[in-house]
Amino acid sequence: MPKIKKILVANRGEIALRVMRSARELGIQTVAIFSEADRNALHVRYADEAVCVGPPASSESYLRVDKIIEACKNLKVDAIHPGYGFLSENADFAREVTKAGIIFIGPSPEAIEVMGDKLAAKAAVQKNDVPLVPGLDKAITDIDFAKKKADEIGYPILIKASAGGGGKGMRIVEDPKDFEEQMDRAVSEAKSSFGDGSVFIEKFVSSPRHIEIQVVGDTHGNVVHLFERECSIQRRHQKVIEEAPSSVLTPEKREKMGQAAIEVAKACNYYGAGTVEFIVDDKLNFYFLEMNTRLQVEHPVTEQITGVDLVKEQIRIAEGEKLSINQDDLKIIGHSIEVRVYAEDPQNNFLPDIGNLKVYKRPQGTGIRVDDGFEQGMDIPIHYDPMIAKLVTYADNREEAISRMIRAIDEYEIVGIETTLGFCKFVLGHEAFTSGNFDTKFIEKHYKPENLDQQLTADEAEIAAALTTKLWREKDTKSQPALEPHRKESLWKKNRM
Amino acid sequence: MPKIKKILVANRGEIALRVMRSARELGIQTVAIFSEADRNALHVRYADEAVCVGPPASSESYLRVDKIIEACKNLKVDAIHPGYGFLSENADFAREVTKAGIIFIGPSPEAIEVMGDKLAAKAAVQKNDVPLVPGLDKAITDIDFAKKKADEIGYPILIKASAGGGGKGMRIVEDPKDFEEQMDRAVSEAKSSFGDGSVFIEKFVSSPRHIEIQVVGDTHGNVVHLFERECSIQRRHQKVIEEAPSSVLTPEKREKMGQAAIEVAKACNYYGAGTVEFIVDDKLNFYFLEMNTRLQVEHPVTEQITGVDLVKEQIRIAEGEKLSINQDDLKIIGHSIEVRVYAEDPQNNFLPDIGNLKVYKRPQGTGIRVDDGFEQGMDIPIHYDPMIAKLVTYADNREEAISRMIRAIDEYEIVGIETTLGFCKFVLGHEAFTSGNFDTKFIEKHYKPENLDQQLTADEAEIAAALTTKLWREKDTKSQPALEPHRKESLWKKNRM
Repeated sequence: MPKIKKILVANRGEIALRVMRSARELGIQTVAIFSEADRNALHVRYADEAVCVGPPASSESYLRVDKIIEACKNLKVDAIHPGYGFLSENADFAREVTKAGIIFIGPSPEAIEVMGDKLAAKAAVQKNDVPLVPGLDKAITDIDFAKKKADEIGYPILIKASAGGGGKGMRIVEDPKDFEEQMDRAVSEAKSSFGDGSVFIEKFVSSPRHIEIQVVGDTHGNVVHLFERECSIQRRHQKVIEEAPSSVLTPEKREKMGQAAIEVAKACNYYGAGTVEFIVDDKLNFYFLEMNTRLQVEHPVTEQITGVDLVKEQIRIAEGEKLSINQDDLKIIGHSIEVRVYAEDPQNNFLPDIGNLKVYKRPQGTGIRVDDGFEQGMDIPIHYDPMIAKLVTYADNREEAISRMIRAIDEYEIVGIETTLGFCKFVLGHEAFTSGNFDTKFIEKHYKPENLDQQLTADEAEIAAALTTKLWREKDTKSQPALEPHRKESLWKKNRM
Repeated sequence: MPKIKKILVANRGEIALRVMRSARELGIQTVAIFSEADRNALHVRYADEAVCVGPPASSESYLRVDKIIEACKNLKVDAIHPGYGFLSENADFAREVTKAGIIFIGPSPEAIEVMGDKLAAKAAVQKNDVPLVPGLDKAITDIDFAKKKADEIGYPILIKASAGGGGKGMRIVEDPKDFEEQMDRAVSEAKSSFGDGSVFIEKFVSSPRHIEIQVVGDTHGNVVHLFERECSIQRRHQKVIEEAPSSVLTPEKREKMGQAAIEVAKACNYYGAGTVEFIVDDKLNFYFLEMNTRLQVEHPVTEQITGVDLVKEQIRIAEGEKLSINQDDLKIIGHSIEVRVYAEDPQNNFLPDIGNLKVYKRPQGTGIRVDDGFEQGMDIPIHYDPMIAKLVTYADNREEAISRMIRAIDEYEIVGIETTLGFCKFVLGHEAFTSGNFDTKFIEKHYKPENLDQQLTADEAEIAAALTTKLWREKDTKSQPALEPHRKESLWKKNRM
């Protein structure tokens, strides 16, 4: 396959910028697409060329396959990077792109398809001996048969209604002697709620952690893993804070999970960068959840601990090259944490708080990386995901990466909208987080809005900042040093959560 | 020694910020000092407390030992970090600080003193078998004796007048048969020029490289080295671009130089962070030049390839702790480059070009670190060093670190003043640099102002940027995609050197 000369990034915001930066380092021209709402966006200004693909609604712009392919033809684009979200896991899009003679920087449509279907994915990986949550994959109504199977699986057992959802008809059975009674109740509850009494049973994973393995494969059949990312800190199934490595894995367990992830990738002849998600219980048993057939939001933490630029690797693989890395050379170096900074108000049930970034100053210094798509003065548009930035720190060890993150959060100046920075700082400072002793229920267990330090509203902070500057400017330069700073400090302290 | 609770940074600009960031990560309070010219500087805004120590002239502010110590007493500061420059290598200052009961974050006054005196330094390290440039350390007039010594030293030989300077009375002798004639001429030239015919002879180091070793020692007698920094790209003896590791050292040579640097440190009972500078010839013979008894401007490249936060290490050592690192654990990981961004005009003999930073946007993304002390809208003051920023990249290997640096330079937006960014890009793209085949004469040999790509002046760039934005805003969003981007590109291209 020939070298790629020009890449269109079929995405927006921070991930579009992130991809273009790596492309530029490889000497590849970049093309941005944008909706009418993103006319002045950073990713548009950064690209060598840019094409408007429609009105603000994603369905009329970023998801318009026809317009994207047309733009590629007009601008002689030879490859498309889909980023994450939007069309990144759309097998039809991958097919259309390839049919148009354009390289799709990602896995084959077949791999996207198999892994996009939970049952097909489980069937595929089961052949390769990848552990799944033990259970019956068929609905049952025969209680004696179910009890026998439950004994085989081992307690605690989760009973859930086939037709259920949202926790309805779900029961946890700790003790075998309660099984029949709970089963009876679950079946009758399912019947009355859904008109269908069939239920599944599977092993109940207690204190579950979400740990995923980054894999990279080439078109020559080589696959390596780049260790894990710990993503257990979630709010409503959305990752909030990610880190690498996980503080609970032993080297042996890491190696086993890495090998299992490689087996998952091989089960669908995977090439490109992908992520295999596992659920891990408190005894470090791990079970396959699903595979994401794209670059993840949280990929930077893996880049920081391995030194591998995953986007460059994706591009090289799409060019038909062999992997530039081999398993034995890969080592974990230090520790990295990412917090997702959202334009949401943690004091107000995390409602999106869009508006203008009146002040926007990123933290700087050693061990800090900020991936974002905004700058001071810009509006956060209402049409898309309210993520402002990914704030990443890396350091020699976990403790230092945490203290660096807290320093970086304190240093981040955002005025004009509420953000989740203070909420993230709360998590980072919590004993359950610092000790590493947490699971996916962290936020339900530990977070209450009133636990956040008293903070100024955006407007108050703005006034305080202006006042501080004014005080300083007006101050006679030769006045008492001991007074001046203390006044300054008290104003600043409040501004830092 | 007790834990440090509050540090005053006796410096300004990027290094003051850099020190305060590490202090904050350690939970230590920070105090800034500032001159009247720096009232609104970032380092002042960043500190927990700040004290004005006098008018703009350094001699009346940043160098006023009495005012600095008074500020420490008023604010109950327990330690001073001197940064680099200013008072950082002033033994008397270190003594005064200690006498006032404040911890000096740096080596002992005695070590500063010995290493600050070139002859004393050479005498000290010679005892520890550290290689010096071979030569006679006494002036000679006896030609026969000199010839015998020259044969021992080996050719080429450098003859220089004791009273000389600026190259006067200096002669390089390649061939032994020319020695007597050149010696005669040197002596008579020295006599007529300086009224003193005595000359020195020493080995002439051809194609010299400047390679320095970072060392760190504690107060318990432990010293480790953190590998080298290649600093050969210099303009008028000022470092311009630094990198780690050097592309010429073998692991064996690196180890030898590291051990020699440790011997230098031990020769003066060194503790804290320090740098041992060597001159290295084209056969990789290395000779001790001098030791800098402070943190260097270019320390970030060492931090990036080792993962060690040198400022935190300095602070811990000052608290009396043992080194947190040992030699065997230290490994070189990847490659890092630093370019110094100066407010100087490379097209106009590098004259300082102070003024207002009308636009100032730092590059972002993976593998980039910017240490600076300015933000958009600020003035670069005339009173101090015109360095705006240190732009640092790091990557898996040297090639990637270079392409990343070029990408970062392209991404850096500075309007309002001329900078050395384009000049640095010229160096990074030069074959002599990319091949690693260069010495301290790189700029004399390869740089002519007309070699820089045609670039817009700051004002032109500003107009172009404004015009671009305007064009984009006015453009009908549904117009031809193929035209729009090309126009944009042509404007941008010029804006990127």
